[in-house]
Amino acid sequence: MEFFSDNTVGASPRVMAALAAANAGSLPSYGADDWTRRVEERFAALFEHEVSVFLVLTGTAANALALASLVRPWGAVLTHEEAHVVEDECGAPEFFTAGAKLVDLPGVGAKLTPEAVTRALSHLRAGDFHQVQAQALTITQATECGTVYTPDEVRALKAAAAPRDLALHMDGSRFANALVTLGCTPAEITWKASVDVLSFGGTKNGALAAEAVIFFDTARAEEMKWRRKRAGQTLSKGRFLGAQFEGLLADDHWLELARHANAQAKRLADAVAQGNQARLAWPCQANEVFIVLPPAAQARLKAAGAGYYEWSARSLPPEAPLRQGEILGRFVMSFATEPAHVERLITAIAG
Amino acid sequence: MEFFSDNTVGASPRVMAALAAANAGSLPSYGADDWTRRVEERFAALFEHEVSVFLVLTGTAANALALASLVRPWGAVLTHEEAHVVEDECGAPEFFTAGAKLVDLPGVGAKLTPEAVTRALSHLRAGDFHQVQAQALTITQATECGTVYTPDEVRALKAAAAPRDLALHMDGSRFANALVTLGCTPAEITWKASVDVLSFGGTKNGALAAEAVIFFDTARAEEMKWRRKRAGQTLSKGRFLGAQFEGLLADDHWLELARHANAQAKRLADAVAQGNQARLAWPCQANEVFIVLPPAAQARLKAAGAGYYEWSARSLPPEAPLRQGEILGRFVMSFATEPAHVERLITAIAG
Amino acid sequence: MEFFSDNTVGASPRVMAALAAANAGSLPSYGADDWTRRVEERFAALFEHEVSVFLVLTGTAANALALASLVRPWGAVLTHEEAHVVEDECGAPEFFTAGAKLVDLPGVGAKLTPEAVTRALSHLRAGDFHQVQAQALTITQATECGTVYTPDEVRALKAAAAPRDLALHMDGSRFANALVTLGCTPAEITWKASVDVLSFGGTKNGALAAEAVIFFDTARAEEMKWRRKRAGQTLSKGRFLGAQFEGLLADDHWLELARHANAQAKRLADAVAQGNQARLAWPCQANEVFIVLPPAAQARLKAAGAGYYEWSARSLPPEAPLRQGEILGRFVMSFATEPAHVERLITAIAG
Amino acid sequence: MEFFSDNTVGASPRVMAALAAANAGSLPSYGADDWTRRVEERFAALFEHEVSVFLVLTGTAANALALASLVRPWGAVLTHEEAHVVEDECGAPEFFTAGAKLVDLPGVGAKLTPEAVTRALSHLRAGDFHQVQAQALTITQATECGTVYTPDEVRALKAAAAPRDLALHMDGSRFANALVTLGCTPAEITWKASVDVLSFGGTKNGALAAEAVIFFDTARAEEMKWRRKRAGQTLSKGRFLGAQFEGLLADDHWLELARHANAQAKRLADAVAQGNQARLAWPCQANEVFIVLPPAAQARLKAAGAGYYEWSARSLPPEAPLRQGEILGRFVMSFATEPAHVERLITAIAG
Repeated sequence: MEFFSDNTVGASPRVMAALAAANAGSLPSYGADDWTRRVEERFAALFEHEVSVFLVLTGTAANALALASLVRPWGAVLTHEEAHVVEDECGAPEFFTAGAKLVDLPGVGAKLTPEAVTRALSHLRAGDFHQVQAQALTITQATECGTVYTPDEVRALKAAAAPRDLALHMDGSRFANALVTLGCTPAEITWKASVDVLSFGGTKNGALAAEAVIFFDTARAEEMKWRRKRAGQTLSKGRFLGAQFEGLLADDHWLELARHANAQAKRLADAVAQGNQARLAWPCQANEVFIVLPPAAQARLKAAGAGYYEWSARSLPPEAPLRQGEILGRFVMSFATEPAHVERLITAIAG
Repeated sequence: MEFFSDNTVGASPRVMAALAAANAGSLPSYGADDWTRRVEERFAALFEHEVSVFLVLTGTAANALALASLVRPWGAVLTHEEAHVVEDECGAPEFFTAGAKLVDLPGVGAKLTPEAVTRALSHLRAGDFHQVQAQALTITQATECGTVYTPDEVRALKAAAAPRDLALHMDGSRFANALVTLGCTPAEITWKASVDVLSFGGTKNGALAAEAVIFFDTARAEEMKWRRKRAGQTLSKGRFLGAQFEGLLADDHWLELARHANAQAKRLADAVAQGNQARLAWPCQANEVFIVLPPAAQARLKAAGAGYYEWSARSLPPEAPLRQGEILGRFVMSFATEPAHVERLITAIAG
Repeated sequence: MEFFSDNTVGASPRVMAALAAANAGSLPSYGADDWTRRVEERFAALFEHEVSVFLVLTGTAANALALASLVRPWGAVLTHEEAHVVEDECGAPEFFTAGAKLVDLPGVGAKLTPEAVTRALSHLRAGDFHQVQAQALTITQATECGTVYTPDEVRALKAAAAPRDLALHMDGSRFANALVTLGCTPAEITWKASVDVLSFGGTKNGALAAEAVIFFDTARAEEMKWRRKRAGQTLSKGRFLGAQFEGLLADDHWLELARHANAQAKRLADAVAQGNQARLAWPCQANEVFIVLPPAAQARLKAAGAGYYEWSARSLPPEAPLRQGEILGRFVMSFATEPAHVERLITAIAG
Repeated sequence: MEFFSDNTVGASPRVMAALAAANAGSLPSYGADDWTRRVEERFAALFEHEVSVFLVLTGTAANALALASLVRPWGAVLTHEEAHVVEDECGAPEFFTAGAKLVDLPGVGAKLTPEAVTRALSHLRAGDFHQVQAQALTITQATECGTVYTPDEVRALKAAAAPRDLALHMDGSRFANALVTLGCTPAEITWKASVDVLSFGGTKNGALAAEAVIFFDTARAEEMKWRRKRAGQTLSKGRFLGAQFEGLLADDHWLELARHANAQAKRLADAVAQGNQARLAWPCQANEVFIVLPPAAQARLKAAGAGYYEWSARSLPPEAPLRQGEILGRFVMSFATEPAHVERLITAIAG
């Protein structure tokens, strides 16, 4: 049993079925097909807003293309120091933006605070040609630590960035997991909370390889068709991107998948909170559980053959650091995680 | 019936079946899975050579990553002026190479000649810091005009480039179609003919979205894992790239698919050659047929509802240009082209 | 005696004097000084137009920054195949534009024609995301072959580019030499002839190292302060760039310098035209003379110790190519060329 | 009287004299002249080591070109968060490196510590393709806070970086000022202390616009001629760069100039240390003095018309932060600072 990531599983059967359905016949290439068009319409309905939608193949591409649409090469993007764009994309944002700077900020549970944003902006003089110019803010929803921003928190970040008119990007590779927790509408946590561009994740939530860059301000999207093509992200048989989202979005299947993953995470988190053999690093708010593991728990997990990653302790609350021998473990649940595995995991931790 | 491209069809059933088979269970992500490993082994066997293989999602990415591995930002890449890298990738090579220059050369039937290479090199002084430095040569196999380079022709191009030690890249988005025509081994038309890096095409030949960058000199591949990731081309659920190639390569299915496409093209080309209502622009050597269409043939094609692209006349032999009213039409056959459609097309052209 | 280039000499004494004058006292850095401000005012007066002026240190930087202001990374810039931006800047335009494409066009005497522009545009589909987008046209004044565009010719090029709304850049590294020949005002050959951005050359005409990028549409200049700084072209002791232009522009000294250079070139060209030992490749219209040299003339030049470059024969009129044994020689006159050297050169050629 | 920067003054008379001397006659362009050659020889003698020397026009270009020689586009460069490359170059390092990442680290007095280097490296996994790869470390000598690294401190930083084999770059825009303080040889504080590449500053120490990138490992310099040209930093009248350094280096004039500046700074620092109206933020070790100014001192400075910059308090020792109403002032002395002005400044601060 392994809890390494939500990308170690395959695709949801409904996604596979949609792919099979999309395979028939001759269709216009490069996204001019009906599968793609229908998905664009679905997104407009889902977000209750006019949107420009660009389907791409990986989350790294989605984020990097989105940021490249928001900042100039001499721009700065404020971000959490543990964000995927900083830690896991091998410099893709710098590549796609032609050299913009990610300004990495601290924050408990991988969440940015308005104070951190304000402080960072105080070091970047607006309009001064000696310096990179703060032009965007990116947040991850749910965060890399499995926490969630509320609509009010998102608005507060945008307000902190307002003196510089920063664009707000949301990396939603786990958007579904966050939404299920928040219980709000997609609109409420995006454009109504002042998000300008969303990377809407499909892969971690049951697709094979499908992400969508969604612009709520369609004027910002005008150059994306060239950016995407130039990046090798415009699929010739575009129907297969459309179909994956069709499989996810129809009948709210994407939310159903996320609910399953979140429920497994909650089961684990609740058990840890009630036990005394380990402790939660911070509240579990989506499909990831971060647990501070004493040596004995580590040993039991090893004996049980439980796969998980040891995580950076940087985002722990300063008042609750790791103690001698402890590590921080990350356990990720997916749409396909088997409840029986979670039970065995709980047993291994609890001893 | 349409003959616009070999990317307007879906995927081969065997590819779809491999995808379904690969969907089960938990597997390491980012290409560390067995499906990917097996495909790498298949390529080594296929090419009878140690290879470094990097699976990616689009042909544009494959070509651009390959070229970025071969040249410096101040490098020049010699290429045909109608090559995909010049005409159809929106500057992806320039983006991925951080600004290298494509030197666009003419040639009948989209084929480069040693003379054109030699002439181009005479305008680029080696070692002179005022100028971009010729560092690579890229050819397309089969070409954008559906013609094919023989191993001897490939070697002659490499020899023409030898005074500058240019690396040789082959854009093989239609490699299978060329190979079927040539009747040689994959080794004979690649590393034995002095090709350094190959973009091995999967998508046009029956995959959903799968291409492979294959290095015959593995030392050149050392940085590719960073380049690919940074470009957003490293699939998290990497199994799905591996599986597509498994579906194609097992039992020589890829050659079977290409044979079908080529056979349809040959049927059309033979009919045109024997008729007197249109003429072949150049010999049909793969799965594309380029036909000079007088007005009457154009009208009949329109009436028959035949879809095809009007093509640039630049690569026509200078001694046989278009005459008044004629256009150059491109007709592409795929693994899924129905012979009955080809017959109807022949009838429409022949009148 | 050498005629290699107009950059093998030092600076005009008036420029040196201005530098010395500017050396006194404490002044704001990075171009906020009065020397810089005065030069900006001088340019506005000289061109009879509101301008945005950016002083930089080399012609390569001036051209590359200007083009980067005009095109997107997926843009295409039409240019002559012998232009400095193509042949002598080691890919600087591609670097500064983040990968835009120079589309290299032929033309006798290094001059572009409206027909060549129209033909090039026919190969680049507007709005198609598969292709780089034609966004600018750059011409050199005087050209790399020492020829000159008239205002009508410039307007005709802009008109040919009008269907795509291309911006027009003029590389004026020898702008003074062209202007002296044309006998028109700076305004007439720039913004009145529809030039959008001018690289105004100082170095070849008597400065140490000073060029100016001049925007006639100041809206296009808004990002230049960041571009220039980021390129390492914003001089901290900015006064020294201002002073060089002050030395050149005051009392029309720059025109006086160019008149001297042009006069030497004319003296040589006239002598060649009247003699029968060599022939002009094309009319001499500025400070460069291109002479087709038979073997005997080559030998006499060698004996006389005359330094000059052998030049590419690509831009010769097709009807007058080099004959056996002939070469094309380039002889460049500067503000400091001694008339006695020109006389000796004439004698060497004439035999 | 103003103490804003050491770039608000002109050039040393000896530099101006060298320029005038270099102005005579015809010389090969682009650095092939004797002035440039002689400077290269001077640097080899000065550093007692074979060196590759590249003269450029600005410090931003020197640093950015140096870093681009040391890291790949997916590389990371460890640096202090107040370093010039971070704060004052508008993203030039990111531009020249094609998107490498600056990892900004804290440190009192703008000095990096081995501990900070070790900690930063612990967040960047070597060889992992998901992450940018730590490849270089850059330090400023003297630092942006006017402090100085000793040879032992430099070696300790290199040792901390040794597990990743980071290249070490020294931004020596105030190298002369540091050297005068250290009292060691140029060799001892550079290659003997394991520096790989040095940006040797000329401008702030009395040149008009001249910096040198000096490679102690000449193999690393092989591509620099293309990088420099492509960046528009290769001067056509190269003699004028050579001459500026000739003026500085002959007769140890550069050290004489730095000694003057440092002496003025020491005079001020000593006075502040002995007084009780303000306090030094950290020891003055070069030509800059950072003073914590209470409101009364600020008012007196204003009344006296003293120009200086208010500086970021980030690099203050955590145990001695600003108190209510205090600011941190930066006072920079140059080769031309008049002692009388320093006396007036001292009086203004002391009250």
